[in-house]
Amino acid sequence: MSPSSKLLAGVELGGTKCVCILGTGPDDVRAVERLPTGEREETMRQIESVLERWRVQHGAPRALGIASFGPVDLRAGSPTYGFITSTTKAGWRNTDIAQRLGRRFGGPVGFDTDVNGAALAEGRWGAAKGLDDFAYVTVGTGIGVGLIVRGKSVFGMNHTELGHIRVVRKTGDKFPGVCPFHGDCIEGLASGPAIEARAGVPASQLPPDHPAWEFVAHGLAQLLHTMVLTTAPSRIFLGGGVLSAQTHLFERIQLELKRSLNRYVEAPEVDQGIGQYIVPPGLGTMAGPLGALALAADAETASSALESPLATAVSR
Amino acid sequence: MSPSSKLLAGVELGGTKCVCILGTGPDDVRAVERLPTGEREETMRQIESVLERWRVQHGAPRALGIASFGPVDLRAGSPTYGFITSTTKAGWRNTDIAQRLGRRFGGPVGFDTDVNGAALAEGRWGAAKGLDDFAYVTVGTGIGVGLIVRGKSVFGMNHTELGHIRVVRKTGDKFPGVCPFHGDCIEGLASGPAIEARAGVPASQLPPDHPAWEFVAHGLAQLLHTMVLTTAPSRIFLGGGVLSAQTHLFERIQLELKRSLNRYVEAPEVDQGIGQYIVPPGLGTMAGPLGALALAADAETASSALESPLATAVSR
Repeated sequence: MSPSSKLLAGVELGGTKCVCILGTGPDDVRAVERLPTGEREETMRQIESVLERWRVQHGAPRALGIASFGPVDLRAGSPTYGFITSTTKAGWRNTDIAQRLGRRFGGPVGFDTDVNGAALAEGRWGAAKGLDDFAYVTVGTGIGVGLIVRGKSVFGMNHTELGHIRVVRKTGDKFPGVCPFHGDCIEGLASGPAIEARAGVPASQLPPDHPAWEFVAHGLAQLLHTMVLTTAPSRIFLGGGVLSAQTHLFERIQLELKRSLNRYVEAPEVDQGIGQYIVPPGLGTMAGPLGALALAADAETASSALESPLATAVSR
Repeated sequence: MSPSSKLLAGVELGGTKCVCILGTGPDDVRAVERLPTGEREETMRQIESVLERWRVQHGAPRALGIASFGPVDLRAGSPTYGFITSTTKAGWRNTDIAQRLGRRFGGPVGFDTDVNGAALAEGRWGAAKGLDDFAYVTVGTGIGVGLIVRGKSVFGMNHTELGHIRVVRKTGDKFPGVCPFHGDCIEGLASGPAIEARAGVPASQLPPDHPAWEFVAHGLAQLLHTMVLTTAPSRIFLGGGVLSAQTHLFERIQLELKRSLNRYVEAPEVDQGIGQYIVPPGLGTMAGPLGALALAADAETASSALESPLATAVSR
């Protein structure tokens, strides 16, 4: 199927909902369809039927991008490349996403985690424009990190799962944590469900002076301490439901981070410039779906680079 | 000064000694000179005099590589690019290394941390040959990590300082830590001096059944847990004085790491293959000096790429 449209198609596959998107970027979104993430076969069929309808209406898109909740298999050549793997989401363990949609669709297919997608979208169209090394942290149902190094999401033998690192606890924090794998990893300590388990009410309804925020801010600052000392992002974007509802967290996290680093890193980003270093993302709730479009755009670029004689000369 | 030699020159600037090296790789080392790292001006002059002598004897080298103890300033365009910055080593804070040697030398100059250099040398000539994403961890006077992503050392607004992340302590570990900045960061808990402070004897003399090793192995496994969930290296090399003297640590760290990850990452590297995942480096004590040569080689490649018409076409 040769592309007959100038458009890109994207699928953001989230733990509670999927967003299908057609367009070329934030200023040119032609269609968006949201559907609940339910039983996996039914959900995949619904996604396929949206993409098929768009193909009939608009022609075959230039590329498809899929930004999925994880963990996912991103190893080139793996038999389960493009699968969701060890998820705790009921019924979705070991589910083929990208191979299936790729076979059905035929063109270049980009596949990455939802947070890496969102980070790439921020880099292309949002608050990270012009930055090559940055991170996008979302604190919501889980804690996810999209980690960009030299313009690409990092990938070694697996994608980043920074939400599951263990962090030092603030003195007095005895909460056992809610992560089924690790208990008190940072997701287990400071995600939306963790905050609700700590306080008895949803994170969005908790007043800013509730004592739980001290522990949450400390934990998130420890996550950032680790990030600053690992890939040292040029800026860190903090988004997701918890941060957008509780903006007082920004200043608390900034203070805790400075205190924790204790001037070891001599950089304005973590000193007088920290207010511009730990910031909200720019694309808001569109970061996820636009992430899928960014993955589509990158897949198309990679695919045309492979076909270019110049690229062949360079790769030799 | 145009190069008149086929050789590369390197300087490994360590906290206790410097190694100057001339050659093209491990099988072709033409000269090595070791000198103590003393007062900074005297040390720099000694390095310059070795390089000058080699220039007279062998011709100007193709490039110079400098692998330095840190923290160092690696920001392109910074007025203090190439400086050692916030070190605790007496008399060496804010010392110009690379600008000074670059002015004196004239050709392409590569500059990075000693551990990034060692990691690049392992990738080029040692145990990491063929790997694009890996990490080199040294546990000795300090804890340093060279972190390679897509073939290059990571760098955002700073280089990696993973030795200064805070880790969760094993229950019962009350040691306050020895890091002057962070107390009980991983360097403060598990470096050579930390082990000596815990046990009262040097790390190399401590018997394998000493209880301090339980805490040290746990801490190092926590460092690795974080690394696996951050850039997910394809292999992690553990070297330095402590690991080479106390090889029982490998199995302990592997076990603690598996336990800590708790099968969240579905990859053979951290399951049945963990014995081949956490391994000693290949270049031994030559990793540091060869790291300086690897930086020289990379600086030469980058410099010729800038001059190539193909590179110009591609960068447009």
